[in-house]
Amino acid sequence: MKVEKDDRLILLTNDDGLYAEGLNTLTQLMQEYGKVVVISTIESRSGMSQALTVKMPIRVKLLKETDTKRVYACSGTPTDGVKIAVNQLLERKPDWVVSGINHGANASVSVIYSGTMAAAIEGCLYGIDSVGFSLNDYSSKADFNASKKYVREIMNKLGNNKLPQGICLNVNIPSCTDSDIRGIRICRQARGNWREEFEKRKDPMGKTYYWLTGIFQNHEPDSTDTDEWALQNNYVSVVPVSIDMTAHSYIDDLRKQFNLYTLK
Amino acid sequence: MKVEKDDRLILLTNDDGLYAEGLNTLTQLMQEYGKVVVISTIESRSGMSQALTVKMPIRVKLLKETDTKRVYACSGTPTDGVKIAVNQLLERKPDWVVSGINHGANASVSVIYSGTMAAAIEGCLYGIDSVGFSLNDYSSKADFNASKKYVREIMNKLGNNKLPQGICLNVNIPSCTDSDIRGIRICRQARGNWREEFEKRKDPMGKTYYWLTGIFQNHEPDSTDTDEWALQNNYVSVVPVSIDMTAHSYIDDLRKQFNLYTLK
Repeated sequence: MKVEKDDRLILLTNDDGLYAEGLNTLTQLMQEYGKVVVISTIESRSGMSQALTVKMPIRVKLLKETDTKRVYACSGTPTDGVKIAVNQLLERKPDWVVSGINHGANASVSVIYSGTMAAAIEGCLYGIDSVGFSLNDYSSKADFNASKKYVREIMNKLGNNKLPQGICLNVNIPSCTDSDIRGIRICRQARGNWREEFEKRKDPMGKTYYWLTGIFQNHEPDSTDTDEWALQNNYVSVVPVSIDMTAHSYIDDLRKQFNLYTLK
Repeated sequence: MKVEKDDRLILLTNDDGLYAEGLNTLTQLMQEYGKVVVISTIESRSGMSQALTVKMPIRVKLLKETDTKRVYACSGTPTDGVKIAVNQLLERKPDWVVSGINHGANASVSVIYSGTMAAAIEGCLYGIDSVGFSLNDYSSKADFNASKKYVREIMNKLGNNKLPQGICLNVNIPSCTDSDIRGIRICRQARGNWREEFEKRKDPMGKTYYWLTGIFQNHEPDSTDTDEWALQNNYVSVVPVSIDMTAHSYIDDLRKQFNLYTLK
Protein backbone atom coordinates (compact mmCIF):
# COMPACT_ATOMS: atom_id res chain seq x y z
CA MET A 1 0.00 0.00 0.00
CA LYS A 2 1.31 3.40 -0.98
CA VAL A 3 0.09 6.43 0.94
CA GLU A 4 0.02 9.43 -1.38
CA LYS A 5 -0.02 13.03 -0.21
CA ASP A 6 -3.74 13.47 -0.95
CA ASP A 7 -4.84 10.15 0.55
CA ARG A 8 -6.76 10.15 3.75
CA LEU A 9 -4.91 7.81 6.08
CA ILE A 10 -7.17 6.02 8.55
CA LEU A 11 -5.96 3.97 11.51
CA LEU A 12 -8.44 1.30 12.53
CA THR A 13 -8.56 -0.78 15.65
CA ASN A 14 -10.75 -2.36 18.27
CA ASP A 15 -10.64 -4.76 21.20
CA ASP A 16 -12.65 -7.72 19.86
CA GLY A 17 -9.73 -9.20 17.94
CA LEU A 18 -8.77 -9.29 14.27
CA TYR A 19 -11.41 -11.85 13.32
CA ALA A 20 -14.34 -9.90 14.74
CA GLU A 21 -17.13 -9.12 12.31
CA GLY A 22 -17.40 -5.54 13.66
CA LEU A 23 -13.78 -4.73 12.83
CA ASN A 24 -14.08 -6.39 9.43
CA THR A 25 -17.21 -4.38 8.64
CA LEU A 26 -15.43 -1.17 9.57
CA THR A 27 -12.33 -2.14 7.58
CA GLN A 28 -14.43 -2.59 4.43
CA LEU A 29 -16.33 0.64 5.01
CA MET A 30 -13.32 2.81 5.75
CA GLN A 31 -11.66 1.93 2.45
CA GLU A 32 -14.39 4.11 0.90
CA TYR A 33 -12.81 7.04 2.78
CA GLY A 34 -9.09 6.46 2.41
CA LYS A 35 -6.13 4.15 2.87
CA VAL A 36 -6.58 1.95 5.88
CA VAL A 37 -4.15 0.53 8.42
CA VAL A 38 -5.66 -1.99 10.83
CA ILE A 39 -3.92 -2.90 14.07
CA SER A 40 -5.37 -5.23 16.68
CA THR A 41 -4.69 -8.27 18.77
CA ILE A 42 -5.58 -11.65 17.27
CA GLU A 43 -7.82 -12.46 20.23
CA SER A 44 -10.23 -10.16 22.00
CA ARG A 45 -9.05 -7.90 24.82
CA SER A 46 -12.24 -6.39 26.16
CA GLY A 47 -12.49 -4.14 29.20
CA MET A 48 -8.88 -3.02 28.95
CA SER A 49 -9.70 0.68 29.25
CA GLN A 50 -6.63 2.86 28.57
CA ALA A 51 -4.26 0.15 29.88
CA LEU A 52 -0.67 0.18 28.70
CA THR A 53 1.74 -2.72 28.43
CA VAL A 54 4.65 -1.64 30.60
CA LYS A 55 6.09 -4.86 32.04
CA MET A 56 6.20 -6.85 28.78
CA PRO A 57 7.62 -6.03 25.38
CA ILE A 58 5.17 -5.62 22.50
CA ARG A 59 5.23 -7.66 19.31
CA VAL A 60 3.86 -6.52 15.98
CA LYS A 61 3.41 -8.57 12.82
CA LEU A 62 2.35 -7.42 9.35
CA LEU A 63 -0.31 -9.95 8.36
CA LYS A 64 -1.66 -8.67 5.06
CA GLU A 65 -1.18 -5.88 2.57
CA THR A 66 -3.24 -4.78 -0.46
CA ASP A 67 -3.34 -1.51 -2.43
CA THR A 68 -5.78 0.02 0.03
CA LYS A 69 -5.10 -1.60 3.38
CA ARG A 70 -2.47 -3.01 5.66
CA VAL A 71 -3.26 -5.26 8.63
CA TYR A 72 -1.04 -5.67 11.69
CA ALA A 73 -1.41 -8.04 14.61
CA CYS A 74 -0.22 -6.45 17.84
CA SER A 75 0.28 -8.21 21.16
CA GLY A 76 -0.67 -5.17 23.24
CA THR A 77 -3.82 -3.40 24.37
CA PRO A 78 -5.89 -1.22 22.02
CA THR A 79 -4.07 1.83 23.43
CA ASP A 80 -0.67 0.22 22.81
CA GLY A 81 -1.77 -0.51 19.25
CA VAL A 82 -2.63 3.12 18.51
CA LYS A 83 0.61 4.31 20.11
CA ILE A 84 2.87 1.91 18.26
CA ALA A 85 1.09 2.49 14.93
CA VAL A 86 1.43 6.27 15.20
CA ASN A 87 5.00 6.11 16.48
CA GLN A 88 6.51 3.23 14.55
CA LEU A 89 4.37 1.83 11.75
CA LEU A 90 2.60 4.60 9.86
CA GLU A 91 4.28 6.68 7.18
CA ARG A 92 2.71 9.78 8.70
CA LYS A 93 0.21 10.90 11.34
CA PRO A 94 -3.18 9.47 10.32
CA ASP A 95 -6.13 11.72 9.51
CA TRP A 96 -8.49 9.57 11.55
CA VAL A 97 -8.37 6.99 14.30
CA VAL A 98 -11.55 4.91 14.02
CA SER A 99 -12.31 2.18 16.50
CA GLY A 100 -14.97 -0.54 16.40
CA ILE A 101 -17.48 -1.54 15.46
CA ASN A 102 -17.56 -2.99 18.94
CA HIS A 103 -19.65 -6.03 19.74
CA GLY A 104 -21.49 -4.49 22.70
CA ALA A 105 -22.52 -0.97 23.69
CA ASN A 106 -20.16 1.54 25.29
CA ALA A 107 -22.70 4.07 26.49
CA SER A 108 -22.81 5.85 29.86
CA VAL A 109 -19.86 5.06 32.17
CA SER A 110 -18.77 2.15 29.96
CA VAL A 111 -16.77 4.81 28.13
CA ILE A 112 -14.36 4.63 31.09
CA TYR A 113 -13.76 0.86 30.86
CA SER A 114 -13.96 0.47 27.11
CA GLY A 115 -10.97 -0.50 24.99
CA THR A 116 -12.86 0.73 21.93
CA MET A 117 -13.18 4.22 23.34
CA ALA A 118 -9.65 4.08 24.81
CA ALA A 119 -8.29 3.71 21.27
CA ALA A 120 -10.33 6.74 20.15
CA ILE A 121 -9.20 8.70 23.20
CA GLU A 122 -5.59 7.76 22.45
CA GLY A 123 -5.98 9.11 18.92
CA CYS A 124 -7.49 12.28 20.37
CA LEU A 125 -4.50 12.65 22.73
CA TYR A 126 -2.30 12.72 19.62
CA GLY A 127 -4.46 15.48 18.14
CA ILE A 128 -6.02 13.13 15.58
CA ASP A 129 -9.76 13.18 14.77
CA SER A 130 -11.07 10.05 16.43
CA VAL A 131 -14.32 8.18 16.79
CA GLY A 132 -15.39 4.91 18.39
CA PHE A 133 -18.38 2.93 17.09
CA SER A 134 -20.22 0.30 19.13
CA LEU A 135 -23.27 -1.84 18.41
CA ASN A 136 -25.57 -2.72 21.28
CA ASP A 137 -25.18 -6.48 20.68
CA TYR A 138 -22.48 -8.55 22.38
CA SER A 139 -22.96 -11.55 20.10
CA SER A 140 -20.07 -12.54 17.85
CA LYS A 141 -22.76 -13.02 15.18
CA ALA A 142 -24.23 -9.54 15.61
CA ASP A 143 -25.82 -8.04 12.47
CA PHE A 144 -23.90 -4.93 11.34
CA ASN A 145 -26.13 -4.06 8.37
CA ALA A 146 -27.88 -1.09 9.94
CA SER A 147 -24.56 -0.01 11.47
CA LYS A 148 -23.01 0.44 8.03
CA LYS A 149 -25.56 3.07 7.06
CA TYR A 150 -24.98 5.06 10.25
CA VAL A 151 -21.19 4.80 10.19
CA ARG A 152 -21.32 6.23 6.65
CA GLU A 153 -23.80 8.92 7.65
CA ILE A 154 -21.65 10.03 10.59
CA MET A 155 -18.39 9.97 8.61
CA ASN A 156 -20.10 12.00 5.87
CA LYS A 157 -21.50 14.56 8.32
CA LEU A 158 -18.06 14.97 9.86
CA GLY A 159 -16.54 15.29 6.40
CA ASN A 160 -13.40 17.34 6.45
CA ASN A 161 -14.40 19.36 9.52
CA LYS A 162 -11.81 18.91 12.23
CA LEU A 163 -13.13 17.99 15.66
CA PRO A 164 -12.02 20.45 18.36
CA GLN A 165 -8.74 19.65 20.11
CA GLY A 166 -9.26 17.24 23.00
CA ILE A 167 -12.67 15.97 21.88
CA CYS A 168 -13.50 12.63 20.22
CA LEU A 169 -16.81 10.92 19.52
CA ASN A 170 -18.49 7.94 21.17
CA VAL A 171 -21.12 6.48 18.83
CA ASN A 172 -23.50 3.74 19.97
CA ILE A 173 -25.87 2.02 17.58
CA PRO A 174 -29.04 0.21 18.73
CA SER A 175 -29.37 -3.45 17.85
CA CYS A 176 -32.41 -3.28 15.63
CA THR A 177 -33.08 -3.24 11.92
CA ASP A 178 -32.44 -0.14 9.86
CA SER A 179 -36.16 0.57 9.50
CA ASP A 180 -36.59 0.53 13.30
CA ILE A 181 -33.75 3.02 13.95
CA ARG A 182 -35.31 6.42 14.55
CA GLY A 183 -32.28 8.58 13.72
CA ILE A 184 -29.20 10.09 15.36
CA ARG A 185 -29.15 12.01 18.64
CA ILE A 186 -26.30 14.07 20.03
CA CYS A 187 -26.26 13.13 23.70
CA ARG A 188 -24.45 13.36 26.99
CA GLN A 189 -23.11 10.39 28.94
CA ALA A 190 -25.86 9.01 31.21
CA ARG A 191 -25.20 8.80 34.94
CA GLY A 192 -25.11 5.19 35.98
CA ASN A 193 -22.86 2.42 37.13
CA TRP A 194 -22.33 -1.29 36.95
CA ARG A 195 -23.67 -3.29 39.81
CA GLU A 196 -21.05 -5.93 39.86
CA GLU A 197 -22.24 -9.29 40.86
CA PHE A 198 -19.30 -11.55 41.16
CA GLU A 199 -19.91 -15.21 40.73
CA LYS A 200 -18.13 -17.09 43.49
CA ARG A 201 -16.96 -20.59 42.54
CA LYS A 202 -14.72 -23.34 43.84
CA ASP A 203 -11.91 -24.70 41.70
CA PRO A 204 -11.14 -28.47 41.53
CA MET A 205 -8.73 -27.94 44.48
CA GLY A 206 -11.55 -26.50 46.58
CA LYS A 207 -10.25 -22.94 46.45
CA THR A 208 -12.46 -19.92 45.87
CA TYR A 209 -12.32 -17.81 42.75
CA TYR A 210 -14.54 -15.08 41.36
CA TRP A 211 -15.85 -14.24 37.90
CA LEU A 212 -16.74 -10.66 37.18
CA THR A 213 -20.25 -10.27 35.84
CA GLY A 214 -22.39 -7.14 36.07
CA ILE A 215 -25.67 -5.41 35.39
CA PHE A 216 -25.77 -1.81 34.23
CA GLN A 217 -27.90 0.53 36.28
CA ASN A 218 -29.08 3.79 34.68
CA HIS A 219 -29.39 6.39 37.46
CA GLU A 220 -31.52 8.71 35.33
CA PRO A 221 -33.74 6.57 33.10
CA ASP A 222 -36.15 9.45 32.47
CA SER A 223 -33.56 11.92 31.13
CA THR A 224 -34.11 12.03 27.38
CA ASP A 225 -30.81 13.72 26.53
CA THR A 226 -28.56 10.79 27.50
CA ASP A 227 -26.89 8.13 25.38
CA GLU A 228 -28.60 5.37 27.36
CA TRP A 229 -32.04 6.81 26.67
CA ALA A 230 -31.21 7.17 22.96
CA LEU A 231 -30.03 3.59 22.71
CA GLN A 232 -33.03 2.18 24.60
CA ASN A 233 -35.32 4.17 22.31
CA ASN A 234 -33.74 2.99 19.05
CA TYR A 235 -31.68 6.10 18.32
CA VAL A 236 -28.02 6.15 17.40
CA SER A 237 -26.28 8.12 20.17
CA VAL A 238 -23.30 10.40 19.53
CA VAL A 239 -21.52 11.72 22.63
CA PRO A 240 -18.62 14.18 22.33
CA VAL A 241 -16.02 12.91 24.80
CA SER A 242 -13.45 15.17 26.44
CA ILE A 243 -9.99 14.03 27.46
CA ASP A 244 -10.01 16.75 30.11
CA MET A 245 -11.45 15.02 33.18
CA THR A 246 -11.28 18.12 35.38
CA ALA A 247 -14.54 18.91 37.18
CA HIS A 248 -14.14 22.61 36.34
CA SER A 249 -17.37 23.63 38.05
CA TYR A 250 -16.09 22.36 41.40
CA ILE A 251 -12.72 24.14 41.42
CA ASP A 252 -13.98 27.31 43.11
CA ASP A 253 -15.88 25.42 45.82
CA LEU A 254 -12.84 23.32 46.55
CA ARG A 255 -10.65 26.42 46.83
CA LYS A 256 -13.06 27.81 49.40
CA GLN A 257 -13.10 24.54 51.32
CA PHE A 258 -9.31 24.59 51.40
CA ASN A 259 -9.22 28.30 52.26
CA LEU A 260 -7.30 28.92 49.07
CA TYR A 261 -9.10 31.89 47.62
CA THR A 262 -6.35 33.15 45.38
CA LEU A 263 -3.67 31.68 43.24
CA LYS A 264 -0.34 33.37 43.88
CA MET B 1 -11.07 -6.37 62.87
CA LYS B 2 -14.56 -5.38 63.91
CA VAL B 3 -16.25 -2.52 62.08
CA GLU B 4 -18.57 -0.68 64.48
CA LYS B 5 -21.41 1.57 63.38
CA ASP B 6 -19.48 4.75 64.18
CA ASP B 7 -16.21 3.64 62.63
CA ARG B 8 -15.07 5.25 59.45
CA LEU B 9 -14.36 2.40 57.04
CA ILE B 10 -11.60 3.17 54.56
CA LEU B 11 -10.74 1.04 51.55
CA LEU B 12 -7.12 1.40 50.49
CA THR B 13 -5.44 0.30 47.32
CA ASN B 14 -2.87 1.13 44.69
CA ASP B 15 -1.07 -0.36 41.70
CA ASP B 16 2.52 -0.57 42.99
CA GLY B 17 1.93 -3.83 44.85
CA LEU B 18 1.45 -4.74 48.50
CA TYR B 19 5.10 -4.23 49.44
CA ALA B 20 5.32 -0.69 48.08
CA GLU B 21 6.41 1.94 50.55
CA GLY B 22 3.75 4.37 49.32
CA LEU B 23 0.90 1.98 50.11
CA ASN B 24 2.44 1.13 53.48
CA THR B 25 2.76 4.81 54.35
CA LEU B 26 -0.89 5.38 53.46
CA THR B 27 -1.97 2.28 55.40
CA GLN B 28 -0.31 3.60 58.56
CA LEU B 29 -1.72 7.09 58.07
CA MET B 30 -5.28 6.03 57.35
CA GLN B 31 -5.55 4.10 60.61
CA GLU B 32 -5.61 7.56 62.24
CA TYR B 33 -8.91 8.12 60.41
CA GLY B 34 -10.71 4.81 60.70
CA LYS B 35 -10.69 1.07 60.18
CA VAL B 36 -8.70 0.17 57.12
CA VAL B 37 -9.08 -2.56 54.52
CA VAL B 38 -6.19 -2.84 52.08
CA ILE B 39 -6.55 -4.70 48.78
CA SER B 40 -3.85 -4.92 46.14
CA THR B 41 -1.88 -7.24 43.97
CA ILE B 42 1.36 -8.63 45.41
CA GLU B 43 3.33 -7.28 42.45
CA SER B 44 2.95 -3.92 40.78
CA ARG B 45 0.42 -3.43 37.98
CA SER B 46 1.13 0.07 36.73
CA GLY B 47 -0.52 1.70 33.74
CA MET B 48 -3.62 -0.50 33.98
CA SER B 49 -6.05 2.42 33.79
CA GLN B 50 -9.64 1.29 34.47
CA ALA B 51 -8.95 -2.20 33.07
CA LEU B 52 -11.15 -5.07 34.22
CA THR B 53 -10.30 -8.75 34.39
CA VAL B 54 -12.96 -10.35 32.20
CA LYS B 55 -11.30 -13.41 30.68
CA MET B 56 -9.75 -14.77 33.87
CA PRO B 57 -11.21 -15.49 37.28
CA ILE B 58 -10.02 -13.37 40.18
CA ARG B 59 -8.39 -14.73 43.33
CA VAL B 60 -8.43 -13.03 46.72
CA LYS B 61 -6.50 -14.00 49.83
CA LEU B 62 -6.73 -12.54 53.33
CA LEU B 63 -3.09 -11.98 54.29
CA LYS B 64 -3.24 -10.21 57.62
CA GLU B 65 -5.73 -8.95 60.20
CA THR B 66 -5.32 -6.72 63.26
CA ASP B 67 -7.84 -4.71 65.32
CA THR B 68 -7.59 -1.77 62.92
CA LYS B 69 -6.76 -3.21 59.53
CA ARG B 70 -7.25 -6.11 57.18
CA VAL B 71 -5.02 -6.79 54.17
CA TYR B 72 -6.09 -8.73 51.08
CA ALA B 73 -4.02 -9.82 48.11
CA CYS B 74 -6.03 -9.72 44.89
CA SER B 75 -4.98 -11.09 41.54
CA GLY B 76 -6.84 -8.44 39.55
CA THR B 77 -6.35 -4.85 38.48
CA PRO B 78 -6.79 -1.92 40.92
CA THR B 79 -10.32 -1.48 39.55
CA ASP B 80 -11.11 -5.18 40.09
CA GLY B 81 -9.82 -4.82 43.65
CA VAL B 82 -12.18 -1.96 44.48
CA LYS B 83 -15.11 -3.78 42.87
CA ILE B 84 -14.54 -7.06 44.64
CA ALA B 85 -13.90 -5.40 48.00
CA VAL B 86 -17.10 -3.34 47.80
CA ASN B 87 -19.16 -6.26 46.50
CA GLN B 88 -17.78 -9.26 48.34
CA LEU B 89 -15.32 -8.47 51.13
CA LEU B 90 -16.43 -5.42 53.11
CA GLU B 91 -19.07 -5.55 55.82
CA ARG B 92 -20.61 -2.37 54.37
CA LYS B 93 -20.00 0.34 51.77
CA PRO B 94 -16.79 2.14 52.81
CA ASP B 95 -16.77 5.83 53.71
CA TRP B 96 -13.65 6.45 51.66
CA VAL B 97 -11.70 4.84 48.85
CA VAL B 98 -8.12 6.09 49.12
CA SER B 99 -5.51 5.08 46.57
CA GLY B 100 -1.75 5.54 46.68
CA ILE B 101 0.59 6.92 47.60
CA ASN B 102 1.74 6.18 44.09
CA HIS B 103 5.43 6.00 43.24
CA GLY B 104 5.29 8.46 40.34
CA ALA B 105 3.11 11.45 39.45
CA ASN B 106 -0.33 11.14 37.87
CA ALA B 107 -0.81 14.73 36.78
CA SER B 108 -2.21 15.96 33.44
CA VAL B 109 -3.39 13.21 31.08
CA SER B 110 -1.72 10.52 33.20
CA VAL B 111 -5.02 10.50 35.07
CA ILE B 112 -6.38 8.55 32.08
CA TYR B 113 -3.74 5.78 32.22
CA SER B 114 -3.27 5.61 35.97
CA GLY B 115 -4.31 2.59 38.02
CA THR B 116 -4.09 4.77 41.14
CA MET B 117 -6.70 7.18 39.80
CA ALA B 118 -8.74 4.33 38.29
CA ALA B 119 -9.22 2.96 41.81
CA ALA B 120 -10.38 6.38 43.02
CA ILE B 121 -12.66 6.75 39.99
CA GLU B 122 -14.10 3.30 40.68
CA GLY B 123 -14.88 4.35 44.26
CA CYS B 124 -16.51 7.49 42.89
CA LEU B 125 -18.65 5.41 40.50
CA TYR B 126 -20.00 3.63 43.59
CA GLY B 127 -20.86 6.99 45.16
CA ILE B 128 -18.02 6.74 47.70
CA ASP B 129 -15.77 9.72 48.54
CA SER B 130 -12.51 8.89 46.82
CA VAL B 131 -9.06 10.35 46.45
CA GLY B 132 -5.83 9.25 44.80
CA PHE B 133 -2.42 10.38 46.09
CA SER B 134 0.76 10.28 44.01
CA LEU B 135 4.31 11.38 44.72
CA ASN B 136 6.39 12.76 41.86
CA ASP B 137 9.12 10.14 42.35
CA TYR B 138 9.13 6.78 40.57
CA SER B 139 11.80 5.28 42.78
CA SER B 140 10.86 2.34 44.99
CA LYS B 141 12.92 4.11 47.68
CA ALA B 142 11.04 7.40 47.35
CA ASP B 143 10.85 9.51 50.51
CA PHE B 144 7.24 9.85 51.72
CA ASN B 145 7.94 12.08 54.73
CA ALA B 146 6.62 15.31 53.24
CA SER B 147 3.72 13.37 51.70
CA LYS B 148 2.48 12.33 55.14
CA LYS B 149 1.93 15.92 56.19
CA TYR B 150 -0.02 16.76 53.04
CA VAL B 151 -2.11 13.59 53.04
CA ARG B 152 -3.14 14.48 56.62
CA GLU B 153 -3.78 18.12 55.71
CA ILE B 154 -5.99 17.14 52.78
CA MET B 155 -7.91 14.48 54.72
CA ASN B 156 -8.45 17.01 57.53
CA LYS B 157 -9.64 19.73 55.15
CA LEU B 158 -12.10 17.28 53.59
CA GLY B 159 -13.23 16.21 57.04
CA ASN B 160 -16.77 14.96 56.99
CA ASN B 161 -17.79 17.05 53.98
CA LYS B 162 -19.04 14.79 51.23
CA LEU B 163 -17.57 15.34 47.80
CA PRO B 164 -20.21 16.01 45.15
CA GLN B 165 -21.58 12.96 43.33
CA GLY B 166 -19.40 11.98 40.41
CA ILE B 167 -16.30 13.90 41.55
CA CYS B 168 -13.14 12.48 43.13
CA LEU B 169 -9.75 14.06 43.81
CA ASN B 170 -6.39 13.61 42.12
CA VAL B 171 -3.60 14.75 44.46
CA ASN B 172 0.01 14.99 43.29
CA ILE B 173 2.86 15.78 45.67
CA PRO B 174 6.19 17.23 44.52
CA SER B 175 9.31 15.23 45.30
CA CYS B 176 11.05 17.70 47.57
CA THR B 177 11.48 18.18 51.28
CA ASP B 178 8.65 19.50 53.40
CA SER B 179 10.35 22.88 53.82
CA ASP B 180 10.59 23.29 50.04
CA ILE B 181 6.90 22.56 49.42
CA ARG B 182 5.12 25.89 48.91
CA GLY B 183 1.58 24.77 49.76
CA ILE B 184 -1.49 23.29 48.11
CA ARG B 185 -3.08 24.49 44.88
CA ILE B 186 -6.48 23.50 43.49
CA CYS B 187 -5.80 23.00 39.80
CA ARG B 188 -7.13 21.78 36.51
CA GLN B 189 -5.61 18.96 34.47
CA ALA B 190 -2.86 20.35 32.21
CA ARG B 191 -3.14 19.78 28.46
CA GLY B 192 -0.35 17.54 27.33
CA ASN B 193 0.47 14.09 26.09
CA TRP B 194 3.11 11.41 26.19
CA ARG B 195 5.47 11.33 23.29
CA GLU B 196 5.99 7.62 23.16
CA GLU B 197 9.36 6.57 22.10
CA PHE B 198 9.36 2.86 21.70
CA GLU B 199 12.64 1.12 22.04
CA LYS B 200 13.02 -1.36 19.21
CA ARG B 201 15.10 -4.43 20.05
CA LYS B 202 15.91 -7.86 18.65
CA ASP B 203 15.29 -10.96 20.72
CA PRO B 204 17.82 -13.86 20.78
CA MET B 205 15.91 -15.39 17.82
CA GLY B 206 16.45 -12.23 15.79
CA LYS B 207 12.83 -11.10 15.99
CA THR B 208 11.79 -7.52 16.68
CA TYR B 209 10.07 -6.43 19.86
CA TYR B 210 9.26 -3.03 21.34
CA TRP B 211 9.43 -1.59 24.83
CA LEU B 212 7.14 1.28 25.66
CA THR B 213 8.99 4.28 27.06
CA GLY B 214 7.82 7.88 26.92
CA ILE B 215 8.43 11.52 27.68
CA PHE B 216 5.63 13.77 28.91
CA GLN B 217 5.05 16.92 26.96
CA ASN B 218 3.20 19.79 28.64
CA HIS B 219 1.29 21.70 25.94
CA GLU B 220 0.77 24.73 28.13
CA PRO B 221 3.86 25.15 30.34
CA ASP B 222 3.04 28.80 31.07
CA SER B 223 -0.48 28.23 32.44
CA THR B 224 -0.17 28.62 36.19
CA ASP B 225 -3.53 27.02 37.04
CA THR B 226 -2.59 23.49 35.98
CA ASP B 227 -1.46 20.48 38.02
CA GLU B 228 1.74 20.21 36.00
CA TRP B 229 2.69 23.79 36.77
CA ALA B 230 1.95 23.28 40.47
CA LEU B 231 4.09 20.16 40.63
CA GLN B 232 6.98 21.72 38.73
CA ASN B 233 6.84 24.70 41.10
CA ASN B 234 6.84 22.65 44.31
CA TYR B 235 3.14 22.90 45.08
CA VAL B 236 0.87 19.99 45.97
CA SER B 237 -1.78 19.87 43.23
CA VAL B 238 -5.39 18.89 43.88
CA VAL B 239 -7.56 18.35 40.79
CA PRO B 240 -11.26 17.55 41.11
CA VAL B 241 -11.87 14.76 38.58
CA SER B 242 -15.25 14.14 36.97
CA ILE B 243 -16.45 10.71 35.87
CA ASP B 244 -18.63 12.46 33.29
CA MET B 245 -16.42 12.60 30.19
CA THR B 246 -19.01 14.43 28.07
CA ALA B 247 -17.67 17.53 26.32
CA HIS B 248 -20.84 19.45 27.24
CA SER B 249 -19.70 22.67 25.60
CA TYR B 250 -19.52 20.96 22.20
CA ILE B 251 -22.98 19.37 22.19
CA ASP B 252 -24.73 22.34 20.57
CA ASP B 253 -22.12 22.75 17.85
CA LEU B 254 -22.31 19.08 17.04
CA ARG B 255 -26.10 19.23 16.81
CA LYS B 256 -25.77 22.04 14.29
CA GLN B 257 -23.18 20.14 12.29
CA PHE B 258 -25.52 17.15 12.18
CA ASN B 259 -28.54 19.37 11.40
CA LEU B 260 -30.15 18.15 14.60
CA TYR B 261 -31.39 21.35 16.17
CA THR B 262 -34.05 19.89 18.38
CA LEU B 263 -34.50 16.82 20.47
CA LYS B 264 -37.89 15.25 19.86
